[in-house]
Amino acid sequence: MSKGLPKRSEDYSLWYNELVKRAGLAENSAVRGCMVIKPYGYAIWEKMQRVLDDMFKATGHSNAYFPLFVPKSLFEAEEQNAEGFAKECAVVTHYRLQTDPDKPGKLRVDPNARLEEELIVRPTSEAIIWNTYKGWIQSYRDLPLLINQWANVVRWEMRTRLFLRTAEFLWQEGHTAHATAQEAIAETEQMLHVYADFAENFLALPVIRGKKTPNERFAGALDTYCIEGLMQDGKALQAGTSHFLGQNFAQAFDVKFATREGGLEHVWGTSWGVSTRLMGALVMAHSDDEGLVLPPKLAPIQVVIVPIYKGEEQLAQISEKVLGLKKQLEAKGISVKYDDRDTERPGFKFAEWELKGVPVRIAIGGRDLENGTAEVARRDTKEKSSQQFDELVNLVPALLDEIQENVFQKALAFREANTTKVDSYEEFKRVLDEKPGFVLAHWDGTPETEERIKEETKATIRCIALDSPEEDGVDMVTGKPSKRRVYFARAY
Amino acid sequence: MSKGLPKRSEDYSLWYNELVKRAGLAENSAVRGCMVIKPYGYAIWEKMQRVLDDMFKATGHSNAYFPLFVPKSLFEAEEQNAEGFAKECAVVTHYRLQTDPDKPGKLRVDPNARLEEELIVRPTSEAIIWNTYKGWIQSYRDLPLLINQWANVVRWEMRTRLFLRTAEFLWQEGHTAHATAQEAIAETEQMLHVYADFAENFLALPVIRGKKTPNERFAGALDTYCIEGLMQDGKALQAGTSHFLGQNFAQAFDVKFATREGGLEHVWGTSWGVSTRLMGALVMAHSDDEGLVLPPKLAPIQVVIVPIYKGEEQLAQISEKVLGLKKQLEAKGISVKYDDRDTERPGFKFAEWELKGVPVRIAIGGRDLENGTAEVARRDTKEKSSQQFDELVNLVPALLDEIQENVFQKALAFREANTTKVDSYEEFKRVLDEKPGFVLAHWDGTPETEERIKEETKATIRCIALDSPEEDGVDMVTGKPSKRRVYFARAY
Repeated sequence: MSKGLPKRSEDYSLWYNELVKRAGLAENSAVRGCMVIKPYGYAIWEKMQRVLDDMFKATGHSNAYFPLFVPKSLFEAEEQNAEGFAKECAVVTHYRLQTDPDKPGKLRVDPNARLEEELIVRPTSEAIIWNTYKGWIQSYRDLPLLINQWANVVRWEMRTRLFLRTAEFLWQEGHTAHATAQEAIAETEQMLHVYADFAENFLALPVIRGKKTPNERFAGALDTYCIEGLMQDGKALQAGTSHFLGQNFAQAFDVKFATREGGLEHVWGTSWGVSTRLMGALVMAHSDDEGLVLPPKLAPIQVVIVPIYKGEEQLAQISEKVLGLKKQLEAKGISVKYDDRDTERPGFKFAEWELKGVPVRIAIGGRDLENGTAEVARRDTKEKSSQQFDELVNLVPALLDEIQENVFQKALAFREANTTKVDSYEEFKRVLDEKPGFVLAHWDGTPETEERIKEETKATIRCIALDSPEEDGVDMVTGKPSKRRVYFARAY
Repeated sequence: MSKGLPKRSEDYSLWYNELVKRAGLAENSAVRGCMVIKPYGYAIWEKMQRVLDDMFKATGHSNAYFPLFVPKSLFEAEEQNAEGFAKECAVVTHYRLQTDPDKPGKLRVDPNARLEEELIVRPTSEAIIWNTYKGWIQSYRDLPLLINQWANVVRWEMRTRLFLRTAEFLWQEGHTAHATAQEAIAETEQMLHVYADFAENFLALPVIRGKKTPNERFAGALDTYCIEGLMQDGKALQAGTSHFLGQNFAQAFDVKFATREGGLEHVWGTSWGVSTRLMGALVMAHSDDEGLVLPPKLAPIQVVIVPIYKGEEQLAQISEKVLGLKKQLEAKGISVKYDDRDTERPGFKFAEWELKGVPVRIAIGGRDLENGTAEVARRDTKEKSSQQFDELVNLVPALLDEIQENVFQKALAFREANTTKVDSYEEFKRVLDEKPGFVLAHWDGTPETEERIKEETKATIRCIALDSPEEDGVDMVTGKPSKRRVYFARAY
């Protein structure tokens, strides 16, 4: 199955694309830049959604749904936001097709069905949502308003890549309104920590929690927080963002509330989102030249069992044992696939489930039947061992926990090994080329210096870590004073 | 809260719209014909989704996701389907906005960013999905292919109505491919029965399972099956459809498979869907002049508990008891809201939860504390009774089951009382006006007669019931022979 999967060391980018397709996660579609998320990929996304949704609800949020389209006049109401997204908007201009008079059997846009006002396919929903909030918020009693939406959004991208950058993608977007700046900032930070917990405890991806520089902020935000992970090629990937919007959208859409004291004030807003981009992070952070390596908590199939048999009678004996085990494991909430297809050989099945990243593989053959054993193989370390069959019901759950932890620790060790402190621009450039990863360097805090470094090295400031210690230093380019190091990297 | 809700008997349509808004289900948005699904409404939709999704998976289906856009050339490939939807398509023609040179601060479509090929916002996804299936299906081993998608779709409607008819709506659409016609028909029928089970056992809505006449078929289908429910105003509502597509889409998109015997054949297809329209059915079938009546299985809050107290101390005593009960009920999987707001009076709270259709309300006051009792009120029958507090943990689950059953039985009795057999056209018209509901009449099987009846009476053939008995008769309009009665009604 995995025959011919390119090697990470030879062409990381090609390896990624091929792996995403061959493992059944996604593929390109007939629509420029839009992907098809295939059943196996979607099953992983569904697991992510379920976990995140539970986290959002546990922190007091409710789901709702707002229109796909944003009328142009609403879209342009918050100017910074509009300007930030204007260049990547898909625009609906007509609402009807008609038979093409010149081409029998073909259709064309009906020139008489032009919309009075163009509709933007939402690239993000602040505009339509804040316009709605105007009707929902009158008094401090209506606050905080804590809403999340699961939706598709469209950002017209010229260079696209499965999961990482697609014209249409799936995401969730939280939009909240608060009575005070302080409360809105607390919400922004809370959701950043929710994302970080999800990344570390489910994706098994260690992340830096930080703030973006003004240059890299979400269009219309006063502050953008982010989590940043490191991929195996040493590039960073922004895995989630949480924005403090101040009163920008409340002002643009005139959303005011009567305070407890009898005043009338604009509300304070936040928004925060993660997307199917997380699927890309999942693949890039952990997988290897044989295929996906899935952290057990997000694996649609956690255990696959392959019978190795000669003849129907032996298969029946194996199946009886296996189906009993399967039931026991499923009762513990573990998803188990018994692959008893008679159309494929065991070696083919092994390779296929390796490619698909199933964390634990159990094989059981004639000798095992005699000995009451089974062969247990871990996807992450590729270790195999012979185990007592009767022990599997206890061993497997513990093994899944161990794999989850190991995948995280491996990614953490990788990040630590590829995070370098540098003090000169020469060293900075050398490290980026020779040992790519996060580079911790001093920065003078100006957009000009940041821009210059970006142009000269393609590295950007990923974030100013929330836990970064104060440290006197000087900017590696300008020599101006700096109070702390920031995280640089080339990024997806 | 419910003050001023219009009465069903006076203006059913206004009652419906006001109820949907005031109960917090949905509202109109700034985008013509598109609605905002509010948190309480969305919570009901999420419950529907969860139940249906489990049913789809239990019948072997997997979820996937396909692009929002359909290139025009793909859209027009299956001609019947394209023709059927052409008049209600939102069309994306441009992919960028720019600053309007004539209006500072405003944006306009960038005339240089016109798409080479227009993109249709999917009104349904057969075209884009079958184009994808071409790459997924080569051999009989790839069949059946059983996929479902949860998505938004857009059909440009001129006269819209919350949930029932909106330009954008949420739905699921199943798309399956099979090796034989027989297998595809079995799938079409299976999914119809899944929908009917869902309608009856969760929505508490009795439905007629039937087939559409050729006139009313889905564009591109050989056969359309449907479930039809009856609303309280005597109008029918189509609550779900399942289509046997024959080889139409396989031919249009050239999807062939190598048979087991070595041949090469087009595959057979089905598609099936239900939408947020079900929310409209839910409201219209059961609710009353005080507000929603929700079947317990779909109620986001199944039990609300309201304390009636004088002073903090009494509240503390009540709260202690209530929180214990809440925990016990939640352990049984029941969702409980303890409404201890100090900003509203009990009477206000009662009216609010009535409006929102919470199936069971428990009130507990000072006298109850002394007596170890509580007042239990059912939303469906409005019956109130005093119960031993300690019995509630057993009584409430049974009561919820009883309410679920009662809501269904009430709707069933209504349908039976409003289904009339008629044998003459005069009687048909009289019944439609005087006792609207389902009218069972003979029909000669021709589209012409069907069309004439529709024009003259606004009633359509809702379906030919799957279980309709053979009965010799004559068409009430033409006098031509007929072998069975069909279901007529005016419909949403």
